Parts: sequence; C-alpha cells; structure tokens
Amino acid sequence: MQRNPQLNEKGELQHLLSIEGLPREILMQILRTAESFVGVTEREVKKVPLLRGKSVFNLFFEPSTRTRTTFEIAAKRLSADVINLNIAVSSQTKGESLLDTVANLSAMQADIFVVRHASSGAPFLIASHVKPHEHVVNAGDGRHAHPTQGLLDLYTIRHYKQDFSRLTVAIIGDVLHSRVARSLIHGLTTLGTPEVRVIAPQTLLPAGVEALGVKVFHDMREGLRDCDAIVMLRLQSERMKGALLPSAQEYFKNYGLTSEKLALAKSDAIVMHPGPMNRGVEIDSSVADGPHSVILPQVTFGIAVRMAVMSMVAG
Amino acid sequence: MQRNPQLNEKGELQHLLSIEGLPREILMQILRTAESFVGVTEREVKKVPLLRGKSVFNLFFEPSTRTRTTFEIAAKRLSADVINLNIAVSSQTKGESLLDTVANLSAMQADIFVVRHASSGAPFLIASHVKPHEHVVNAGDGRHAHPTQGLLDLYTIRHYKQDFSRLTVAIIGDVLHSRVARSLIHGLTTLGTPEVRVIAPQTLLPAGVEALGVKVFHDMREGLRDCDAIVMLRLQSERMKGALLPSAQEYFKNYGLTSEKLALAKSDAIVMHPGPMNRGVEIDSSVADGPHSVILPQVTFGIAVRMAVMSMVAG
Amino acid sequence: MQRNPQLNEKGELQHLLSIEGLPREILMQILRTAESFVGVTEREVKKVPLLRGKSVFNLFFEPSTRTRTTFEIAAKRLSADVINLNIAVSSQTKGESLLDTVANLSAMQADIFVVRHASSGAPFLIASHVKPHEHVVNAGDGRHAHPTQGLLDLYTIRHYKQDFSRLTVAIIGDVLHSRVARSLIHGLTTLGTPEVRVIAPQTLLPAGVEALGVKVFHDMREGLRDCDAIVMLRLQSERMKGALLPSAQEYFKNYGLTSEKLALAKSDAIVMHPGPMNRGVEIDSSVADGPHSVILPQVTFGIAVRMAVMSMVAG
Repeated sequence: MQRNPQLNEKGELQHLLSIEGLPREILMQILRTAESFVGVTEREVKKVPLLRGKSVFNLFFEPSTRTRTTFEIAAKRLSADVINLNIAVSSQTKGESLLDTVANLSAMQADIFVVRHASSGAPFLIASHVKPHEHVVNAGDGRHAHPTQGLLDLYTIRHYKQDFSRLTVAIIGDVLHSRVARSLIHGLTTLGTPEVRVIAPQTLLPAGVEALGVKVFHDMREGLRDCDAIVMLRLQSERMKGALLPSAQEYFKNYGLTSEKLALAKSDAIVMHPGPMNRGVEIDSSVADGPHSVILPQVTFGIAVRMAVMSMVAG
Repeated sequence: MQRNPQLNEKGELQHLLSIEGLPREILMQILRTAESFVGVTEREVKKVPLLRGKSVFNLFFEPSTRTRTTFEIAAKRLSADVINLNIAVSSQTKGESLLDTVANLSAMQADIFVVRHASSGAPFLIASHVKPHEHVVNAGDGRHAHPTQGLLDLYTIRHYKQDFSRLTVAIIGDVLHSRVARSLIHGLTTLGTPEVRVIAPQTLLPAGVEALGVKVFHDMREGLRDCDAIVMLRLQSERMKGALLPSAQEYFKNYGLTSEKLALAKSDAIVMHPGPMNRGVEIDSSVADGPHSVILPQVTFGIAVRMAVMSMVAG
Repeated sequence: MQRNPQLNEKGELQHLLSIEGLPREILMQILRTAESFVGVTEREVKKVPLLRGKSVFNLFFEPSTRTRTTFEIAAKRLSADVINLNIAVSSQTKGESLLDTVANLSAMQADIFVVRHASSGAPFLIASHVKPHEHVVNAGDGRHAHPTQGLLDLYTIRHYKQDFSRLTVAIIGDVLHSRVARSLIHGLTTLGTPEVRVIAPQTLLPAGVEALGVKVFHDMREGLRDCDAIVMLRLQSERMKGALLPSAQEYFKNYGLTSEKLALAKSDAIVMHPGPMNRGVEIDSSVADGPHSVILPQVTFGIAVRMAVMSMVAG
C-alpha cells in the first residue's frame, strides 16, 4: 500500500495538497485548530510566535493577489518570515525547471512552500521532492484542487450549522472550471454530509460528476429546495464570452441567486461565495449583502484556516 | 451638523483623509507626535512596538514606489505587519468593486488602510464604509489631497521657522495638478500663516484659487520677495509637452528657481520640493543642493509624520 | 595613496563592492563569519537579532528574483527590516538621477543598500556618496563584479578543500560576460590558489585574461586534468543565438561538463555552478545531480555569506 503523500509516518499532516485523501480526523483537527486562531485574529496583538524564525515561501507561478495576501497575513500572524516570489517573471523564463527552482529555494532553508501553479499536480510533484522538514501547501493548481478554500468553506458551514450529518448543501455554477468545487465536495462527503447537490447547466459540469457522490440539478428552483448551505461559484468572465454560455444576462436569469430563489431554501440557510463576486451575474446584491450571506466571515475564517494548516505542518 | 469624517466622537483622529477640515489642535498634535519620532529614526534600533501585531495594508490603486516606501518604512518602524497590494493588477481587473475589495481585506482583520487612488474621494468613500476599529490614511487621491505630504511640509517649516504667525510662504509651479498644494495651503492657513502666495502662470492655477486665502503672483521675482519658505512643485512631464506650457526651457526661464531669483527672498529662506525633482526645469541644481535647500530633511521628517499619523489613529 | 573605498579608516569592511582590492585578512574574516551563520540557518529558529531595527533597502535597477531573494532572506534572518525596490518601474522612469534616488532613500535612514545595476561601477558611485553610517553591498553590476557570488564560491571551495594553497581550480564557460568569473579569480588569487585555469572558446574570453593570473585552455579535456574544483558558468541564452557560438549542441559537445570529462579531474573534485543551470548546455544532468556536485550547498552557503557581509558592515 502506498503511503498517503500528505501524511508523515505517524499519520500527521505533512503537506496540504488536496482535501481528497485526507482522513476525517485530520480534517476535524484542522477545523478545531482554526477555531483557536479565530480568537487570535480578533485580539489587539494579532500575533502568536508559533513559526518564529521559520521561512515561508509564497511560490506563485500564476498571479493571485487575493490568495497570496491571505497566506502572507496568516504566516505573518504566526511570526514567520515571508518571501513572496512571482516566478512567472523570473527563473522559469530563464528555462530553469520547476524542480531546480524548488531545490534552489529549499537550499535557502525553507520551511513551507505555499504553491500556486496553473498545472494540476505541480504541488504534488514538489512535495515528492522536498526534504522531510519542508512542507508544501497547495494554494490552487489548475482546475484540480484549492484545499484551503475548501477547508474554509467547511469551517464556515460548521461554524453556522455545527453538525454536518443533517445538512443539505448545494454548490451552484461553474463546477467544471472550479478549483473550489472538487475540494469542497470531497470534504463534505468525508465529514458525513448526507446530501451534496450541484446545480449548473450541463455545459458547466464535468462528465461523470455524479461519481463524486453528488446529486445533479439543472433547475435552480428544484435544487435549492430545503438547502441549509448554498455555495455560489465564481463565473470566470472568459466563460461568459465563450460558447459554453449564451450570455451573462441569461446565466443570471437561470443560475443567479436572487432573494426570490433563496426563499426556496431553508429559512436559516447560509449563502457563501469564494470571491471575487460578479454581482448581477452569479449573485444579486440583495443576497450578497443580505442577512443570509456569510461571504465576509468566510474571509476571516480563511485566515484562521491557513494559520491552522501552516502551524500544523511546521509548528 | 454633520460629524467630521476624520474624527471620532471624542474628537480624536480616526482617519487622515485631508488637511482640510482638521482642527488646529489636531494638526499641532500630529506635528508634536512626529517630533518624538524624529529621535527614534536616528537611533541604532529604529523601532518602537506601538503597532506590534497590527496589520497595515498599503492599497495602491495607482503605482507610487516612493510614497509606498515611506509608508512601509514608517509602519515597520512601528513594528506593524505590512502587506503591499498593487490593486491595478489584481481584483479590480476582475471586475470587483472598490468597496468589495476593501470589505474583503477588512474581513482579514486590517487595522490601517493606506490608500492611493487616481479618483478624488476614493479614500473618503472607503473611510465611510470601514468598521470603527479600522483606519484610512490617504496617500494621494487624484488631484485632490495628499495630506501626509502637506503635513511633512508643515513639519519642515515649523522645524526651521518655529512660529507660523509671522511667515510668508510661497508655493510655486503647477498648483492646478498638484495634490500637494491644496493640502498645504489649508494647513498653512489653519496654523495662522499670515501670507501664503502662489506663483504660477495662469494656465497652471485652478480657477478661483484666491478663495483659498492665497495671494496670486504671475511674476516670480515679485512673488519671491521677502519669503521665509519656498515650496517648489514638481512639473509633470506630461505638462511640458502639452498645450499648457510653451516648453521646459521657457518654463525654467520664468518659474525655475535659480540662485539669482532665490536672492530676492529672505536671507534665511528655506527651499522645499516634494520630489522627484526635475533639475533644470523647476529648480536649478545650485539651489537644490545649496545651503537653503531642506529637500532631504523633508524626506526624513516625512517618515516621522507618517509614524505619527499611524500611531495616533491605531496606536 | 588613495584609501580603499571598501574599508573604513580602521581597515574594517565598510562596503562590499568587489573582491578585487579586498585584503586577504578581510576575505578570511568574511569566510569565518559566514561559518558561524551556517549553524544558525540550520536551527529551528533561524534568526539572530544582530540587525534588529536596521533598514536594508534592496535596490534592484534590473530584475533578479533569485539574487534579491537571497539577500532578503539573509537580512530577515539578521532581524533587519527589508524594503524591496524595483527601480526600473519607478522614479528612474520619472527622470530622477541615480544619486537623487539614493539621497532620497538615505534620508529615510537606511543602513544598507543592496544594489543591483546594469552599469558597471554604479555601486561604487553610490558608495562614494552615502553617509558614513550607510553601507553598500554590490549584488551585481554590469559585467564587472558580483562579489557575494564570488565569496560563496570561495566559501564552498574552502568548506570542501580547506587549504587553498594546494588547489587547482578551473572556471569553465562564458568568462567574457560573467559577473562571477572576475570576482572569483581575484578571490582565488588573493587566497593563494597556485593554479587558476579558465577553459573557454576564444570568443568567450576577455582580451588579455592571462593578466589576471590565470592559465588559458581551449580544450576542456586538457584543462580539467587534475582539477580539485570546477566552476561551471552559466551560458546566457542570448549567446547561444548570437554570432559568438555555433549552437547550444556544439557548445555542449565542446564545453559541457559530462561524467566522462569529469573523470579527467581528481577523483574527489567538486563541481560548482552559480545557477540557474542550463542542463544539457553547460552541464549534463548526471553531473549536476551526481556525487561531485556541490551546487545546492553553494546556495545554502550563499545565505550565510550574505549574512556575514551585512552583519560585518552594519552589525
């Protein structure tokens, strides 16, 4: 049996590459650790010395200011030294291979590599080549995984709904191109959510998505019925222009979340979105800013979740 | 009566948006606080723990390495964690609104937003939407205000001349497009400067500038007579090519500060410039590097002033 | 006699501009100080408080993520505050002179300027204008010098071979365009290396290179014979396309280091490369990743050497 590349021989978290394959107990440990950091980020002095003297390299092979910022803040609040590297503009253009770049940074005595890469599997490749005391955190690879976003979604649902075992969760929109959806579906399933739904036009669903253990809906009104948590996905503007969709207006009419459609879900349903939002495309402002929205708390919890992951692997 | 958006209900500084509207006592408090930091920046260990564990976000919607650097240094010397965000290349291009971007960062538990934006009023808009424990410092908005530059000019004049109540100050050059001039004129007036002059061709003066309480001169030799402090403004290179001015050479002949023209001012007059200088356009090198120039001390005082503002709002 | 611009009146290191001109004793002091930091970078908490409260400005007038990163890490491990400035995109484009830019930053109370510039001599020019308590470290200027790279090469050779006085060292490749080769040759000579060889086609050697005290070889098999240390140089991709070389394949055939050619050197020879490597052009992967390669330890020692230099000038 091959060892789980995310765990060390004691079964502890060594890298965070994907929610897929993480045991339930590790997921719960991340959520509980994050809970302890939510308090820290609300204090006057928002720092703990857990990673003092450790070096965190933000290795961004494709730009994402938002994601980079959340990791940078999380690392600084753990007292780590943070080095931001936008690799698109440096060595890679000099023809150096990904593994040479990482070996080089590793020789500078790195502790954590936060990796964002357009190619699925790049963080796995890096994790399989670093030294035992080095750790890789996937900050989004291709269409594959974005585990800290999935974890913060899980944290948010648990915060508002406590017990996963009685929930119906709907994920709505561009599941096909989403790094988030896949991570989240695996997490929800692992934590025992009885019903996970995806709601989208056929053109925005991966082939065979049912195999992940979800129920597929093409009609939003049907799919929203009796939901406890609704996760809206961002529609990339490229899609709006492409052949996959007729128009942004048409999409909003069918799959945009409005107050009227939201009324079909449970009366205490929460609405989530990974941001940045396209108001009037996937979500109406009355919902985004309304009483069911937990979109901004998600961001706050996201810092705590990233602190939890980094302190668990390297603390 | 509407409350001053820059002060909290106790009348303390809550945001720094514009010198306009700041009471004399607050201006003096900033200048006195800055004085205490000038000593700090000259020590071996140039740090004080006043903002330890606080997060300062440098939100630059237009690039300005020089201004960003001064705020970054000031924040680090107060022991804050600093996150630099060049927003032009990130979320804004994804179609997210200014207020969504700020709400998102605010959810990461920000303490201070240092905002640079091409649109007049953007920092005001942000300040009216952040939470009570969050603070906005305007680092330049459109042609409107650049209050920390104005404050460091006031600090510099006070440092060399002590009492504003007997001074004649001349501001020379492109008042029309200057973020600095407006801030400074308000500050000088508030602190009781009896004579503030602007010296410029008609094409580089805003309509109705006299209403700000300044005397207008078009002839530099007249305007410089008996001045105590001379504030040169930077001429943007766009102007030199435009219809507003005949040529850089012609401008220098009429409005460039030379030793010969400087001799018309008081013998102990100080010469200031916000930088970067166009030597040979608005100022001659013999003046820029001469005994009357306090251009480099301005930069030093600028760090102390920014430390003062940040520690007053969030300390 | 003109004073050495790199030393203060007590003969201590004041700036690091070039290995050329550094006395043997200073070179040895840097290497010994670096040795003490190699231990630090292997600890749990990789920080020492030697530069706490000091400001290090990374002034990069041409981009080099790799070099900037090594200095940033070294400075942070000394507990300094680091400000990264990519000057190409800021003031220089506003027409400000190099010395005005530096004077401005100096007024912000800098302690160390790490300078990378395309023009030979720029760091010397800056060093001749800064205040006595400010220090300049050359991070590469034109084709001239790259002293910290040369120093880390010396450190690496000393680490594996101890005594320079019995060594034969070969430097192979594009000596003409290398910032590294010149620095290293001077260092090796100063530390008493009896035989320094350069191996390259005539087109990649500077005229009169023999005057530096090296033996010239055009045939790699001859030049490698009995070497203790082999320093491969990076071949810039521009050269491969230019008139200087027939093709990358042809270059590799003649000057690429393969296991077969390496066998001509001593059996315990070490192989070095400044990175990033062009595998299959100047070096074969079997050598780069083989038992003689000390390419990754070079990177580790490079951090320690930069910590040594910065702590010696400003500590």
